[in-house]
Amino acid sequence: MDEFEIIRRYFERETAADVRVGVGDDGAVLIPSPDRDLITVVDTLVAGIHFPETLAAADIGYRSVAVNLSDVAAMGARPRWMTLALTLAEPDSSWLEDFSRGLFEAADPHELALVGGDTTRGSDTVVSIQIIADVATGRAMTRDGAEPGDSIFVTGTVGDAAAGLSILQGGLARSDDVDFLIRRFARPDARVAAGAAIAAVAHAAIDLSDGLFADLGKLLAASEVSGTLELADIPLSSPMSSLMAENDAIRFALGGGDDYELCFAARIADADIGAIAERAGVSITRIGRVDEGDGLRCTRNGDDYPYRDDGYRHFH
Amino acid sequence: MDEFEIIRRYFERETAADVRVGVGDDGAVLIPSPDRDLITVVDTLVAGIHFPETLAAADIGYRSVAVNLSDVAAMGARPRWMTLALTLAEPDSSWLEDFSRGLFEAADPHELALVGGDTTRGSDTVVSIQIIADVATGRAMTRDGAEPGDSIFVTGTVGDAAAGLSILQGGLARSDDVDFLIRRFARPDARVAAGAAIAAVAHAAIDLSDGLFADLGKLLAASEVSGTLELADIPLSSPMSSLMAENDAIRFALGGGDDYELCFAARIADADIGAIAERAGVSITRIGRVDEGDGLRCTRNGDDYPYRDDGYRHFH
Repeated sequence: MDEFEIIRRYFERETAADVRVGVGDDGAVLIPSPDRDLITVVDTLVAGIHFPETLAAADIGYRSVAVNLSDVAAMGARPRWMTLALTLAEPDSSWLEDFSRGLFEAADPHELALVGGDTTRGSDTVVSIQIIADVATGRAMTRDGAEPGDSIFVTGTVGDAAAGLSILQGGLARSDDVDFLIRRFARPDARVAAGAAIAAVAHAAIDLSDGLFADLGKLLAASEVSGTLELADIPLSSPMSSLMAENDAIRFALGGGDDYELCFAARIADADIGAIAERAGVSITRIGRVDEGDGLRCTRNGDDYPYRDDGYRHFH
Repeated sequence: MDEFEIIRRYFERETAADVRVGVGDDGAVLIPSPDRDLITVVDTLVAGIHFPETLAAADIGYRSVAVNLSDVAAMGARPRWMTLALTLAEPDSSWLEDFSRGLFEAADPHELALVGGDTTRGSDTVVSIQIIADVATGRAMTRDGAEPGDSIFVTGTVGDAAAGLSILQGGLARSDDVDFLIRRFARPDARVAAGAAIAAVAHAAIDLSDGLFADLGKLLAASEVSGTLELADIPLSSPMSSLMAENDAIRFALGGGDDYELCFAARIADADIGAIAERAGVSITRIGRVDEGDGLRCTRNGDDYPYRDDGYRHFH
């Protein structure tokens, strides 16, 4: 099975309306909408580094798309087209079938079309996805607009994915709670609708891939402001709370990464945030505030809580 | 050195005029031009598969961009923005410095801006580049428009890169001729200007990555026509002719791959082709003709020449 056959068999689909030429020529030809900026994001997952080698192929496909959709969500943008660069040790029909099914399960709800790809051979499984999105001209959300006086918000619950990965690697006995956490790692929900809704009010936003503490730190640094995070306000899922001691839950939430929730700064009334949350179909929780200065400090029920970032980094 | 530091130190540059937000946020924000279709291409190079492990880092950087620019050229498009997904076993400062220099040497003449990237760790060096280009609405060149009666043309000379790779692996004594062929492999010239000039007259085009015979075969199949290739007319470089026996040169030209020249079908007078070649700064040679039917046959000085495709494929 050569690379053309792989693309044809597993990744070629009916051409979408905004695609003039899809998979199969030297490049794809895409029809952009007028009065939009383009957004491009790229994220690579390597087996054994970004996910355990044992993760199901369908989950790898799903997750590869979701982590990129999450970057699109953090810009408040609308996903449109994606390309796939897939490096595999051996082409295996059942793996490719499962992988492509997971990939489309993540992409289809967002009408995200796969328009190109390249399959190559190598020792690792490496999945690199690139998405082109768009947004009204000049309206992309960035990390650098947070202002003193803003509140800090986060969507959904935090820490689940890191706890799920830890369980995957450790082998805790399966239960509904355990399955929930593992699924939060394997099949993250990119907050695309929330990102679009938040874009109207947020001064700055980022998605949580490296951990709440590290990623919020980046938003604050880009905005040249400081922040305070109240740990008692961090939203934890009920499976997390029932399976983990509170200190462990907080450690997963602050440093764990892989949540793919959105964290943002805005000055807005609770009622308005509630309306946005309802529209986007996800909870939104106020977890801190922005001040002058720099750095991120944590409090727990108002008392200083010293925390050292051990957020996830490549090449450490 | 973590991934943010790598991106900042080696790949961050002044933001181009058509880039609203460059490297460093969740995604890049790009300002498209009105009345253009977008083109997206992606190509991955894996060490030990697509280039020898010993290839200089600067050449790897250059080549990774050039092979993608070649796809853009084959669509007659204008390159605009690129993203880089780079997987490395170990981050090495001098390697990264050389790699990024080569990458920008290939990109800068085309005003191609690097707008995003992801660096990850893995066992192989894997370089995946994606380029977004644009072209006047509806004017992209594709593979599927060749018509009976068209001539088949090729830019530049063919077979040099494959001969250069063979020399790199075999270790022929260095000379000016040998260096020329190696350079044709290590630093291919993407025919971007030629692609744009050809787009006005060509019915179909493809770039030569897998070998003239295989790639022309794809163009003919996409166009549902047949073709005849006259081997005596294939343009060979003088280093190729002086270093290789004619039969070897023909074998490299037909099956070797990695040329990144453009092959296209058009019905056009010699004088008009000459004018396009002069404008694009590259020779263009008539090498065959398109007929009804299917398949690609070769002749040598008019006599049938049986040739079996052994064009390069991954996963064979």
